[in-house]
Amino acid sequence: MARLDDAALDAIFREARSFNHYLDRPVGDDDLRAVWELMKWGPTSANQLPARLVWVRTPEGKEALAACASDSNADKIRAAPVTVIIGMDTEFHDELPWLFPHADAKAWFDGNAELRRESAMRNSTLQGAYLIVAARMLGLGVGPMSGFDQGAVDKAFFTATPSVHANFIATLGHGDPASLHPRLPRPAFDRFNRLA
Amino acid sequence: MARLDDAALDAIFREARSFNHYLDRPVGDDDLRAVWELMKWGPTSANQLPARLVWVRTPEGKEALAACASDSNADKIRAAPVTVIIGMDTEFHDELPWLFPHADAKAWFDGNAELRRESAMRNSTLQGAYLIVAARMLGLGVGPMSGFDQGAVDKAFFTATPSVHANFIATLGHGDPASLHPRLPRPAFDRFNRLA
Repeated sequence: MARLDDAALDAIFREARSFNHYLDRPVGDDDLRAVWELMKWGPTSANQLPARLVWVRTPEGKEALAACASDSNADKIRAAPVTVIIGMDTEFHDELPWLFPHADAKAWFDGNAELRRESAMRNSTLQGAYLIVAARMLGLGVGPMSGFDQGAVDKAFFTATPSVHANFIATLGHGDPASLHPRLPRPAFDRFNRLA
Repeated sequence: MARLDDAALDAIFREARSFNHYLDRPVGDDDLRAVWELMKWGPTSANQLPARLVWVRTPEGKEALAACASDSNADKIRAAPVTVIIGMDTEFHDELPWLFPHADAKAWFDGNAELRRESAMRNSTLQGAYLIVAARMLGLGVGPMSGFDQGAVDKAFFTATPSVHANFIATLGHGDPASLHPRLPRPAFDRFNRLA
């Protein structure tokens, strides 16, 4: 496989930034579907795909979500064109017979709620990262956030599916470069890496 | 921001595959450093960067790691040029004074081991996904795996840093396309997504 060109490396990682403010330019439902059509290909363990996504873009939806967030995040949710809730289904194993037909993968998780919760957390988070990367590839800016009341989001958005719990949320839009602050530091390889 | 071209979308998501077998072609330490130099820019909450990575490429390292894995994964570890352990530091907050100098973010986590564990798990997993994407951007194949004994890996690789725990592992190399099986299914938008 060939290395991608510098433009791709810059757009996804080297020059990419998280956004708190967006340009006054709409994001259509087709854009959100396009994000899913890319991110869905990212790998999860035994093809679990435990993420359950709610793309919030109506005024009522934004108010309901903002009410669950810290003050500064509530303002960001109200102002952003879209905020997506990355939920995780702790009963994802019920879908494995068709998502992973090679083996009885459902049986690996039956009766083991702790393993399901850890696996749902790990794999829905991987999917959340794929969402961030996919949105950037399509030219969208992303603002991931953890500052919200998970139980309140579950109550507001997942009462019909009680096995689903909020993992994290992210605003989406056309990022406003004028709103960016200087970048936070990143360490060189040797600080957090070891060769063995 | 512009949409990236189809070659990038294909290489990272649409045509990308997880690999179990690699070509007989070396992966140098410079390649591993290049993966870090890209993935380090991916966002984590309050710039936590809790991942601690061990890149295993010596015969002794591979044997030590293979001894902690399920039989089929042990064979993959022995055969792959490199296997990386994505560890997570549950005391990542000690680094926040320089990683996130805007606020006393360390204080948010002092004395709250449960919050630290959840946050280390979420954010090190995001970094693991960035690793997968970054490696693919550089032309490498990746084989992420969860089938191993976390406690045994901690004992074999993280005794000097007892706050670090294995999250998941991934083989790396130049993927052998001839070894691939047909792709597992991915659902259309409406199955796991909702507009609100």
